[in-house]
Amino acid sequence: MVKFKKMMKLIAEKAWEMGRSDPRKIIFAAKMGLALTIISLLIFLKEPFKNDISRHSVWAILTVVVVFEFSIGATLSKGFNRGLGTFSAGGLAVGMGELSALAGEWEEVIVIISTFIVGFCATYAKLYPTLKPYEYGFRVFLITYCYITVSGYHTGEFLDTSISRFLLIALGAAVSLGVNICIYPIWAGEDLHNLVVKNFMGVATSLEGVVNHYLNCVEYKKVPSKILTYQAAADDPVYSGYRSAVESTSNEDSLLGFAVWEPPHGHYRSLKYPWKNYVKVSGALRHCAFMVMAMHGCILSEIQAPAEKRQVFRNELKRVGFEGAKVLRELGNKVKKMEKLDRGDLLYEVHEAAEELQQKIDKKSYLLVNSEFWEIGNRPRDENDDHPKGLFHMDEDSKFLEYKSLSEAVLDLRSIEVQNNWDEKTTDNNGNNHDVPPSIANENMSVKQMSWPAHVYYKAKEEESKTYESASSLSLTTFTSLLIEFVARLQNLVDAFEELGEKANFKDPLEQQSVV
Amino acid sequence: MVKFKKMMKLIAEKAWEMGRSDPRKIIFAAKMGLALTIISLLIFLKEPFKNDISRHSVWAILTVVVVFEFSIGATLSKGFNRGLGTFSAGGLAVGMGELSALAGEWEEVIVIISTFIVGFCATYAKLYPTLKPYEYGFRVFLITYCYITVSGYHTGEFLDTSISRFLLIALGAAVSLGVNICIYPIWAGEDLHNLVVKNFMGVATSLEGVVNHYLNCVEYKKVPSKILTYQAAADDPVYSGYRSAVESTSNEDSLLGFAVWEPPHGHYRSLKYPWKNYVKVSGALRHCAFMVMAMHGCILSEIQAPAEKRQVFRNELKRVGFEGAKVLRELGNKVKKMEKLDRGDLLYEVHEAAEELQQKIDKKSYLLVNSEFWEIGNRPRDENDDHPKGLFHMDEDSKFLEYKSLSEAVLDLRSIEVQNNWDEKTTDNNGNNHDVPPSIANENMSVKQMSWPAHVYYKAKEEESKTYESASSLSLTTFTSLLIEFVARLQNLVDAFEELGEKANFKDPLEQQSVV
Repeated sequence: MVKFKKMMKLIAEKAWEMGRSDPRKIIFAAKMGLALTIISLLIFLKEPFKNDISRHSVWAILTVVVVFEFSIGATLSKGFNRGLGTFSAGGLAVGMGELSALAGEWEEVIVIISTFIVGFCATYAKLYPTLKPYEYGFRVFLITYCYITVSGYHTGEFLDTSISRFLLIALGAAVSLGVNICIYPIWAGEDLHNLVVKNFMGVATSLEGVVNHYLNCVEYKKVPSKILTYQAAADDPVYSGYRSAVESTSNEDSLLGFAVWEPPHGHYRSLKYPWKNYVKVSGALRHCAFMVMAMHGCILSEIQAPAEKRQVFRNELKRVGFEGAKVLRELGNKVKKMEKLDRGDLLYEVHEAAEELQQKIDKKSYLLVNSEFWEIGNRPRDENDDHPKGLFHMDEDSKFLEYKSLSEAVLDLRSIEVQNNWDEKTTDNNGNNHDVPPSIANENMSVKQMSWPAHVYYKAKEEESKTYESASSLSLTTFTSLLIEFVARLQNLVDAFEELGEKANFKDPLEQQSVV
Repeated sequence: MVKFKKMMKLIAEKAWEMGRSDPRKIIFAAKMGLALTIISLLIFLKEPFKNDISRHSVWAILTVVVVFEFSIGATLSKGFNRGLGTFSAGGLAVGMGELSALAGEWEEVIVIISTFIVGFCATYAKLYPTLKPYEYGFRVFLITYCYITVSGYHTGEFLDTSISRFLLIALGAAVSLGVNICIYPIWAGEDLHNLVVKNFMGVATSLEGVVNHYLNCVEYKKVPSKILTYQAAADDPVYSGYRSAVESTSNEDSLLGFAVWEPPHGHYRSLKYPWKNYVKVSGALRHCAFMVMAMHGCILSEIQAPAEKRQVFRNELKRVGFEGAKVLRELGNKVKKMEKLDRGDLLYEVHEAAEELQQKIDKKSYLLVNSEFWEIGNRPRDENDDHPKGLFHMDEDSKFLEYKSLSEAVLDLRSIEVQNNWDEKTTDNNGNNHDVPPSIANENMSVKQMSWPAHVYYKAKEEESKTYESASSLSLTTFTSLLIEFVARLQNLVDAFEELGEKANFKDPLEQQSVV
């Protein structure tokens, strides 16, 4: 008893929570209850007058329960399917009935054979991919056909049965459509609209999160196996942000299928509203999200760039990430408010940031590669101990001054240093990096790797990862060029958005201002 | 008339094609026809004996049509839902009926109110995410409850109605289960199994295709907008291979939902067969497929590495791609044949190939960066015109000899060369690359870029792309490190596979041999 009470309390809590997070669910359930009540009342009221109705009353109830879907579009499409299926099956069954009646003693055989043939054809047709949205219609067709044939065979009232059945289905459909549309309608189109906006925000959050994680060297102690097997993980906002955008395809497709059924309403006033373009924008966003996903892959990877190298590009990476997320949020808001873009170039700042990052990479790309194994000779690098800050912490402002002086220093020291490098490979690489966590000393490791015989293969798992450790510096390159590719893909997203804005007749923010 | 004939021919052709590509669809349609025929016959036969059956015959037909699903698992789960829904609703309705009968004149009010409450609760509950698989059960519950209440209100035969209804539903369910299971059963589990195998093959094809395309510098003249908005494009095997693996999540989930209902059968003999692990393996494969997708992104990108640099790593990249695809195919075949892995390490060769690629990168990573803008001084590079083959075509075998001599050449020429570099930046970079298509001369371009004022922003679209051109060499780095990351992720896939093999009791190929 105590257990039962506890369970009831838990259920009540969950129900309350669901209702609070999406009140439309409560309203929908109430609407359903109301529709059922109305149909029951109608059948109660009609009962005394016609006895035939009672026999077929089940159809009205069935129609209400089956047709009453969450969104208007789904209700309309199911209602249409049901109507069409019933109508055509009714016609066919009546025709078949008349025909079989002519056959005399072979009547029964003809009925049986026709049932098989109709069942076969309808089932086969509904398996055809492009007919899948009408799957429900085929089912209704079969039910109606068999029912009318079987019941008509005994009573001979093919026409009567199918007409009263059709009337009751129409009654049920009218009640459910009336209740569903007139009382607080829930539109699939609006859901689609909101889903697209949500995807924009999710990807923006992920992008910022990925860049910040990367710069702060957040590492997964153990990558959650949910990520490794691509399952939903609610507790990681970075992961779930882009995942939900990537995963929403099937959801979008089904919402699109319903939205096209909906009449013009609310903000979506044109007759052939371009719902398809919402899905297209979302697809273009997904194309960007894949880059965020690949960047996240750099964080998940065993191959990690050393922290001090990441810090060199800190400001630039951060700026690109910030500007990229800003563009996504701006586009998301524009979609939400159904406004066209402002006159200025939305991508100006993010492109500038990307360009800056690119220039920095061009200047510092020696940091991105491991020069120890170069065939053409090692590059000089560690000889500038006289610069107390080292290469890694060069200030942007004093860059051009140091630029020259550094290069001279290099020239002076080069001949000696290179000699040294060829004699002994293990110069103290980390000598000037005292401000870096000591745990990250990959360069030493990769030096040690050199002593491996090239074809000795370590089987133990722990050592396997070492195989890839020398790729660590390249990992930073990968991250930055994925980020730049992300920025490049934004243009495609903006194009898709502009097409949507044109077709859906979004408001022009400038015109609005001038009106005010 | 001619038009009609043409259309009929087209339909017949499509139907024939569908049947040839998946004969199970024809069999399924025939089974459906058979089940309907049987149920019609049964009702015909029973008619003379009991008149009550005729009134409720619709339930049997309805059950057959609704419960008869493509796979056994779906049929069982729907049948269970239907049975449970009918049973519990029947119980509740009978109880309510007795209760309302006691209320005397308030009977009608109680019936109406209870209808509303039941409708509300059942609809609200079915919206709860974890109860979604039972959505159909809730519908049946509502239909049954309303029907029994309404029809029982007038006749007073609550119990009779619900019993005869339940019997007819049982009859319908028995017929459809009998036909569906006994005649050529179609198992959802087998579909899931095949889907996972298909995903393996698709990703393997994509991987090989991506690597080959990349090495052959296949470029999309114009990236198909279907790829940019992530829609299905059947004509590009590279794209559709990984896309179908990425997209199959929802399909897998629904098949999993059905497969768990299926009794042990065929190859899947244990009682609690680990279908979940198939989905997990597929998820791990997807985790790898995302890397293939990112690599494909390098081909789609505007930022392209120059062809001659790709050729340097040709053999290594090709080998990793080939070995990676081999591993995927091998795993796919093992899943297909339900065998455990052989004793040897499956990943040995692909790891070795990746290691070789990594070493090559370490040695040649100066090719991956653009040294023209280095602050610490340009690296010497073009002074070895006396080596006729140039840096790009160094033979692996003679490497160590040239290694030394080259480095000396560098030492000799360095001081002069570096001076030169600071005076004029445009040394003839392409002088020793005559075997490379002349169209690709990105290095010159990036030199020209240097003359841009840093903050001048070109607005025209054609020029936008130039902003990123200097990233071209980094693109090769990205591609290779994505490929290496792909190899690293294979371990995770193998782990998932081994877990599946353990839980599903796959055959051990060695044991089998010893038995033979």
